[in-house]
Amino acid sequence: MTGNAKLVEHITARGADFGQWYTDVVKKAALIDYSSVKGCVILRPYAYAIWENIQKALDGMLKRTGHENVYMPLLIPESLLQREKDLVAGFAPEVAWVTHGGHEKLTERLCIRPTSETLFCEHYRNIIHSWRDLPKKYNQWCSVVRWEKSTRPFLRHREFLWQEGHTIHATADEAMRETLDMLDIYAELCEEWLAMPVIKGPKTESEKFPGAHSTYAIECMMHDGIGLQAGTTHYFEDTFARAFEIQYADKNNKMTYPFQTSWGVTTRLIGGIIMVHGDFSGRILPPRIAPVQVGIVPVAAHKEGVLEAASKLKERLLAAGIRADMDASDQSPGWKFAEYEMKGVPLRLEIGPRDLANGACMLARRDTGLKSPASLEGIETGIAGLLDDIQQGLLSRARENLKARTVSALSIDEMKARTEKGFIKSMWCGSGACEEAVKESTGMKSRCIPFEQERISDTCVCCGKPADKMLVFGFQY
Amino acid sequence: MTGNAKLVEHITARGADFGQWYTDVVKKAALIDYSSVKGCVILRPYAYAIWENIQKALDGMLKRTGHENVYMPLLIPESLLQREKDLVAGFAPEVAWVTHGGHEKLTERLCIRPTSETLFCEHYRNIIHSWRDLPKKYNQWCSVVRWEKSTRPFLRHREFLWQEGHTIHATADEAMRETLDMLDIYAELCEEWLAMPVIKGPKTESEKFPGAHSTYAIECMMHDGIGLQAGTTHYFEDTFARAFEIQYADKNNKMTYPFQTSWGVTTRLIGGIIMVHGDFSGRILPPRIAPVQVGIVPVAAHKEGVLEAASKLKERLLAAGIRADMDASDQSPGWKFAEYEMKGVPLRLEIGPRDLANGACMLARRDTGLKSPASLEGIETGIAGLLDDIQQGLLSRARENLKARTVSALSIDEMKARTEKGFIKSMWCGSGACEEAVKESTGMKSRCIPFEQERISDTCVCCGKPADKMLVFGFQY
Repeated sequence: MTGNAKLVEHITARGADFGQWYTDVVKKAALIDYSSVKGCVILRPYAYAIWENIQKALDGMLKRTGHENVYMPLLIPESLLQREKDLVAGFAPEVAWVTHGGHEKLTERLCIRPTSETLFCEHYRNIIHSWRDLPKKYNQWCSVVRWEKSTRPFLRHREFLWQEGHTIHATADEAMRETLDMLDIYAELCEEWLAMPVIKGPKTESEKFPGAHSTYAIECMMHDGIGLQAGTTHYFEDTFARAFEIQYADKNNKMTYPFQTSWGVTTRLIGGIIMVHGDFSGRILPPRIAPVQVGIVPVAAHKEGVLEAASKLKERLLAAGIRADMDASDQSPGWKFAEYEMKGVPLRLEIGPRDLANGACMLARRDTGLKSPASLEGIETGIAGLLDDIQQGLLSRARENLKARTVSALSIDEMKARTEKGFIKSMWCGSGACEEAVKESTGMKSRCIPFEQERISDTCVCCGKPADKMLVFGFQY
Repeated sequence: MTGNAKLVEHITARGADFGQWYTDVVKKAALIDYSSVKGCVILRPYAYAIWENIQKALDGMLKRTGHENVYMPLLIPESLLQREKDLVAGFAPEVAWVTHGGHEKLTERLCIRPTSETLFCEHYRNIIHSWRDLPKKYNQWCSVVRWEKSTRPFLRHREFLWQEGHTIHATADEAMRETLDMLDIYAELCEEWLAMPVIKGPKTESEKFPGAHSTYAIECMMHDGIGLQAGTTHYFEDTFARAFEIQYADKNNKMTYPFQTSWGVTTRLIGGIIMVHGDFSGRILPPRIAPVQVGIVPVAAHKEGVLEAASKLKERLLAAGIRADMDASDQSPGWKFAEYEMKGVPLRLEIGPRDLANGACMLARRDTGLKSPASLEGIETGIAGLLDDIQQGLLSRARENLKARTVSALSIDEMKARTEKGFIKSMWCGSGACEEAVKESTGMKSRCIPFEQERISDTCVCCGKPADKMLVFGFQY
């Protein structure tokens, strides 16, 4: 590896303390800064640019599948939040309350949205009257506030950015299909863009969203074997429609309750990318969402023609739709190498006087550290191919890690005996008490009931009674 | 015109009551819905899509000029807001206060950002140490909250969407240049994209932003002659740097205060577009930011081949980069015509069995109401040309209105004698008392001191003393 030792030594070794390694990589690589309000962080340009690339990818998928963006208010009156009893029970302990506007005390407290089901319901009640008005497939990009006790960069903030989709349909079937379609879109986002393999399936009763009939999740595994719930979709049946009195006249002019869904992913995905792909030199960003795909470092930049050639190369790559950047500062090449590595730039391009004479340059892959010379002629095609390779390589590597760290267990003792962190597949009778007992004994929560089921045994990992569901357990961030 | 009388009769005549016409157009054409919190509205899909197009245009210009997007927290501690005395005096009366997180009372109140200068200053203090760290040219897209007493759709909300740029520079000259460059970018956005002509220039002392050394504005005129401040840029000198103790080591290693700017435009621009271009049938959207540029209406859609031909045409236009939509519902063509007109779709394309037989269709311009037949062969080029024409036509029409409604006045009596609303150019001695006296007598506020000065007379419109500045007055939304 070409990293500059003076810079990288600041990063805690990933194997020694994964948590501290993560904090170092996030803070030292200028992704975030802390504000004076605990848990409310500043997303610095590089972090926000990653989010913009995620937004662009997902927003495109949502629009192609007929979703429209809207913007709902930030503030929810207390009485509105209380309309659906499970939702209020789930969120009331962790909302921020506005009590004063200017110098005046408000007649009713307003909370800052922790999620916007109530606002969408109020709006749907206003605009949905006939079967002609259905479905509505709305989405919004915004921030939400949840007054969490403990926080961690990207994974758990008091304020975070997300998208929340809220749809409403004439039939239960259609709403259920939407719930599952959105899960597929989230899986596609994670696997195809973020190179993060997922396990898909419903959450258990005890892990579902407050007020939902059922919740589905994509579950990812971080490099250290700990799980991250990367996205969820919820099917509400007609519970919210009944609580908010949303009714429409069907084709026979009969007043009917519609069916709803909601679904969201957040900036926590950025934390996931770092924890899945990062290494001892810092981050590694999947090329498809990396703000900078190729970092150009002029070597012996003072020599005639080097800077000009590097600039020209940058323009060529930009023209070919490759996100290229050049560090023309007066720092040393070694410093620049370490900086691009820490930032997670997938490919580094070095060009110096000797390369110029040969009509070539050097390419260094961030994922494998391998360096190889490349001719400048037609380099755009070569680079595009390498970026694809890196994208695929990161996904394969993460898939291998997921596979290697996923085992089966037939009993709680077997689960407890496991020393390496990871996912554990086990049979489950379906009882909440058994799920809770596993959590109590092992510290692991259920991740989901994977769609891809296996028959590991015939009996529940906890109570030994007949069991026909395979449930995946794991520690979580 | 082809409007369906049954639909359009709901819109108040624009000449009779411009304010009510505006409310009708905004509400009936499904741009917004009201929430249960006064002044906090829902931006419905069509309104949000206009905002997305404005964002895309402006974000592109900002990135091309070296600006980076970031995200700052929503909440500001009271003590942080109070660091700069003018800013807190300006905003404290209209901020919303968070006093509780979950069930606990906070030790310090937090306000929801009314603007983010204080947060950017705190962050700049953390990250700026050396001349190498300058400049920083940051921007954020977010919502802000200002607890206004009276509200009006798009023009004045308690919560609104905007972008706020915040930059920091080594020299006063560079910061001042940024302030003026951003004003030019706002003018370009308004004129080239929104077809809204602007007057550019500094605001007077009494109209500048709290804490700013100077404020510059782009001022637009609505169709009824009333002014709208469409965007502002502020030069802060080193006032905020001193208040927040932001210092950097310059090249001689001397600790130095940097210079700052901020600038913003908001969703109020959507209100401006409607008020500048709308007519008795509803909105007219400039093609460059219209979510739908061409609305296709199949005529006699039950006849063989009509729907298929209309669909194929839509796909052709989409492939050519034209935002086309087709209304294939079972409503009558007349209903669809009125709907597209109300929505402000710049061009309507009608296609029926007779057109099909002739390999042609009918195109109706929203701005002039003129209909003309067009051959289907190469129609993409023809439509792109027509859209350009409409864009230019709207800008010219708005320029004519601005010109026709802008007059000069030599005295306050002359100003008061004016019956038609519009802008009044007049000479001004530079005293705040004279500016105030004009406002008291006429109800008109100063808009700005235009960069394009004229010498109307040699004496102040109010006090009669020597005057060398031309100031523009006008009523405002």
